[in-house]
Amino acid sequence: MTSTLLSRRDLDFLLFEWLRVDQLSKRQRFADHTTETFADVLTLSEDLAERYFAPHYKRSDADEPTFDGQAVSVNLPDIKEALKAFADAELLGMSMDEKHGGAQVPVTVATAAFMWLQAANVSTIGYPLLTLANANLLTEFGSAEQITTFVPPMLAGRFTGTMCLSEPHAGSSLTDITTRAELQDSGTYRLFGSKMWISGGDHDLTENIVHLVLAKLPGAPAGTKGISLFIVPKFLVGADGTPVERNDVVAAGLNHKMGQRGMTNVLLNFGEGTFLPGGREGAVGYLVGEPHHGLAYMFHMMNEARLVIGAAATALGYTGYLKSVEYARNRPQGRPISADPAAPPVPIIEHPDVKRMLLAQKSYVEGALALILYCARLTDIASSSESTEERDSATLLLDLLTPVAKSWPSQWCLEANNLAIQVHGGYGYTREYDVEQHYRDNRLNPIHEGTHGIQSLDLLGRKVGQHDGAGLRALEALIANTIGEAAALDGEPAQLAAQLGSAWHRLLDVTTTLLGSDQPDLALANSALYLEAFGHIVIGWIWLEQLVAAADRTGGFYDGKRCAARYFYRYELPKTGPQLDLLNSMDTTTVECSFDGWEV
Amino acid sequence: MTSTLLSRRDLDFLLFEWLRVDQLSKRQRFADHTTETFADVLTLSEDLAERYFAPHYKRSDADEPTFDGQAVSVNLPDIKEALKAFADAELLGMSMDEKHGGAQVPVTVATAAFMWLQAANVSTIGYPLLTLANANLLTEFGSAEQITTFVPPMLAGRFTGTMCLSEPHAGSSLTDITTRAELQDSGTYRLFGSKMWISGGDHDLTENIVHLVLAKLPGAPAGTKGISLFIVPKFLVGADGTPVERNDVVAAGLNHKMGQRGMTNVLLNFGEGTFLPGGREGAVGYLVGEPHHGLAYMFHMMNEARLVIGAAATALGYTGYLKSVEYARNRPQGRPISADPAAPPVPIIEHPDVKRMLLAQKSYVEGALALILYCARLTDIASSSESTEERDSATLLLDLLTPVAKSWPSQWCLEANNLAIQVHGGYGYTREYDVEQHYRDNRLNPIHEGTHGIQSLDLLGRKVGQHDGAGLRALEALIANTIGEAAALDGEPAQLAAQLGSAWHRLLDVTTTLLGSDQPDLALANSALYLEAFGHIVIGWIWLEQLVAAADRTGGFYDGKRCAARYFYRYELPKTGPQLDLLNSMDTTTVECSFDGWEV
Repeated sequence: MTSTLLSRRDLDFLLFEWLRVDQLSKRQRFADHTTETFADVLTLSEDLAERYFAPHYKRSDADEPTFDGQAVSVNLPDIKEALKAFADAELLGMSMDEKHGGAQVPVTVATAAFMWLQAANVSTIGYPLLTLANANLLTEFGSAEQITTFVPPMLAGRFTGTMCLSEPHAGSSLTDITTRAELQDSGTYRLFGSKMWISGGDHDLTENIVHLVLAKLPGAPAGTKGISLFIVPKFLVGADGTPVERNDVVAAGLNHKMGQRGMTNVLLNFGEGTFLPGGREGAVGYLVGEPHHGLAYMFHMMNEARLVIGAAATALGYTGYLKSVEYARNRPQGRPISADPAAPPVPIIEHPDVKRMLLAQKSYVEGALALILYCARLTDIASSSESTEERDSATLLLDLLTPVAKSWPSQWCLEANNLAIQVHGGYGYTREYDVEQHYRDNRLNPIHEGTHGIQSLDLLGRKVGQHDGAGLRALEALIANTIGEAAALDGEPAQLAAQLGSAWHRLLDVTTTLLGSDQPDLALANSALYLEAFGHIVIGWIWLEQLVAAADRTGGFYDGKRCAARYFYRYELPKTGPQLDLLNSMDTTTVECSFDGWEV
Repeated sequence: MTSTLLSRRDLDFLLFEWLRVDQLSKRQRFADHTTETFADVLTLSEDLAERYFAPHYKRSDADEPTFDGQAVSVNLPDIKEALKAFADAELLGMSMDEKHGGAQVPVTVATAAFMWLQAANVSTIGYPLLTLANANLLTEFGSAEQITTFVPPMLAGRFTGTMCLSEPHAGSSLTDITTRAELQDSGTYRLFGSKMWISGGDHDLTENIVHLVLAKLPGAPAGTKGISLFIVPKFLVGADGTPVERNDVVAAGLNHKMGQRGMTNVLLNFGEGTFLPGGREGAVGYLVGEPHHGLAYMFHMMNEARLVIGAAATALGYTGYLKSVEYARNRPQGRPISADPAAPPVPIIEHPDVKRMLLAQKSYVEGALALILYCARLTDIASSSESTEERDSATLLLDLLTPVAKSWPSQWCLEANNLAIQVHGGYGYTREYDVEQHYRDNRLNPIHEGTHGIQSLDLLGRKVGQHDGAGLRALEALIANTIGEAAALDGEPAQLAAQLGSAWHRLLDVTTTLLGSDQPDLALANSALYLEAFGHIVIGWIWLEQLVAAADRTGGFYDGKRCAARYFYRYELPKTGPQLDLLNSMDTTTVECSFDGWEV
């Protein structure tokens, strides 16, 4: 039976027919690899997903981690077993440098591989993926000692990693964090404060947990320029690398989420004196890199985490789509409007409204998957290119596309899950089927690692204008190229190319208007709509790219791609029209309405 | 403290300033009532909601009903206590005829009153509201004996009622049901079959459960014209009206829902021989009305249930809105873009993107509430008018608007709950706050009592063309009238009136195109989009109505109404443009894409 987690056929198309990942092997960094090793990695991940991650998906929702007032326990043994099987496969660090124990597999391939596991059990795979982002930060900015102490056990699955940014009073506003770090004579630091929303912040799955913590040194500059980054392990590590002594970082509570329940989410207290004999002496921490540069380092991890979130949202949308296609093909109910009422019922996939809901899902999840893999490939180009120009261009594009790659799947693959429920009818609303859990799990993705609002301010308030708009110009060149290729194909691709060109130029005009405004608060007031319109146009481009790659190919798979592209251009891309109209008008509604004394 | 369930201020505006419910007292049917009795009913409901229904909202989610293989138990005592308090208040039958024990309170007022309870605990109040729809069917179509046997104990809270339509294999396709009823010498019937998705289908809350069951008699005409309706009580009732003997209708399983978990949802078997000593002799049933007319009778109950669903969706959206306003007013975080980074954080309600999410919610939930009350008032006009013309016009309009009143709140008040979560950030995703439960509870509403797809076929395939388009013409006259009133006000109302007129005429043109098509399957293929566009234009009209009612009024409450109307016209109504374009093009995408051999 074909998997209902992801489509290997689609992955093969995107990786090898469209993105030509096989060509990456010509580069020094990836020279050890071939199409076959890439295929092996994908097969191994699919196998792990089906055997170890999917089977406990529902159990990890029903049997939640618990907190006894002191520590968090993950009680379901399946989670530990799946993580062991994953660690044994030695996949986690596969994209890292060989010098850090990696295998220099392209991130594009690794991303696709990990998505099998995200589709199977987004909570369980969350522990290692967060750990990987932590390890990648350390190898980039940590000292040699920090790297050798913490990275190998993380890659081996003996330690996990977290990122500790938010605080209970400050949420997304990092400028307002108050966790403080005090230098000791020993050269280490002691940390005091509380961190909120820490995924994997406490559990009993591994020997140790490596927290990366944002904190302020005494007398640091105000705001985000005064934030430093510290390693705070749950257990202090001895000379031989094994955990020896409990550090003073303690779970103070567990958040009980709507979904993704298998992944703990913890309020952590640092330096409350719970474990150290001396009382409130602080949690031992080690400074990463230079003082006051912590937020810049953390952005390295955050940007990676944002792509991981986009990939998770996509994987959840994708598996829900496949499950609803399977359901619709096998559920007989009703008959066409014009059919004889006595005719036997037909599979519901024959009803136009059901096809509409499936095509919408297909256009969302395959569009999102293609965008995620495209972004992953940009990191591979940036890490492997010998041309500064190519490297810079890839980095600029990745910077520009990251808020889209985080937000668009979080919004539209959640909508895909909404439609997957609807295709299942009443069954989709029950916990006997998977899709309701996908919908709950996926609802986290528009919130964590920066809400939609945060992403939209990042896009419009920073990224599109950055470096005099260089990222936007790089994207424009790519889109123009795709439009040119599609126009040369005549027929439908040429029509869609014209439609995309028109939407893109409208977006550019609106961008100019907004960036040129002398009222920045007003220009940013509808940034969320800008992000939505920008995202739909980017996905329109991604679909045109797929159409070009599918040109002259025959067969059901390519027919499906053409139908989904058509759906996207007819039903979805036109939604940007009213959004761009509103943005262009510099609408003042939200700025002017105050809610003061409204007796809502 | 002001309630965060519903806004009494808004109810007072809609009922007394806009709909002028006080004027209903001039009619014979409502002559016993005054504005004061209406106000008392609302106050009593709010009090019951706060005291008995809201406190166990989360507990009724966490402590689900259980099934032991034979029967369903509702284990949480709070549910029974709330239902007792509600029964003691004698509110359930308040709109019914005096001859049936009612008080002839307008349905408009009763609907508003019940919405307090729906906002507080949609599952717990579900039992009595479904019972009321059952009782209303019986008083309309049942025999005198059936009414006296079953209606008084239902109104008193001793019995509950259900509607049994769907079957496991047939879902929404009632033409395919196979439950059969066989006439006995005694004049009663014996039923055999299974019914799926039966809300309140089994429980231990009351002495008895009165099932209204669709079934077919032997030799009945094929399809929906051969369906009859039967009363099948869980316990057969003795001469004195008390339950005496278990009937052969048995719970075969419990569906475990994503939300609305306090309301049981049951698979029922009829005539499996579980309780009757003679084995498979069938469940005893009593025919309601004439044979083969069952579906028409059931539509009486379904139409009422659809408005109840619309009201439930609205109530959930409304309370989520109020809670997110309260949260946003009290949560300091971040500061305006142009502010000094060292300035203290501001309440998040000052951020434009948060205001956008609150205004969107406000425009959805207040628009939906107004539509629901408007529809309720149409039933009052139909039941009280001495003019045939007025009565027919109200009935036509109600028929036309019912699919909108069911679907629009189900879609957009769910979206309101989505935004309420987003306003709460991470907190909104936790079960420590209410809004995640609202989102789960509300997700049922686009499914039950006819999915969006079913509603859209009802609207476009039946209602708009019915009686030569008389319903649509009646709506057109009303809209033209509102546009005229708004145009006379100048300023913003006149602008919005012009925008509405333009959207309405475009809708009419598209309707003509679709109804005039010689390809009915194609014309109906995008009925779901038609329903969405129609709904948004109707709500645009409802907002213009509110603006007219608020004209010349000053103060925060009316400022809020004007801002929400402005939001709806600038951000929402333009969404109908691309939808109507697509409909007008008779797009063939969903009809032509087959999914055959697609290797999805």
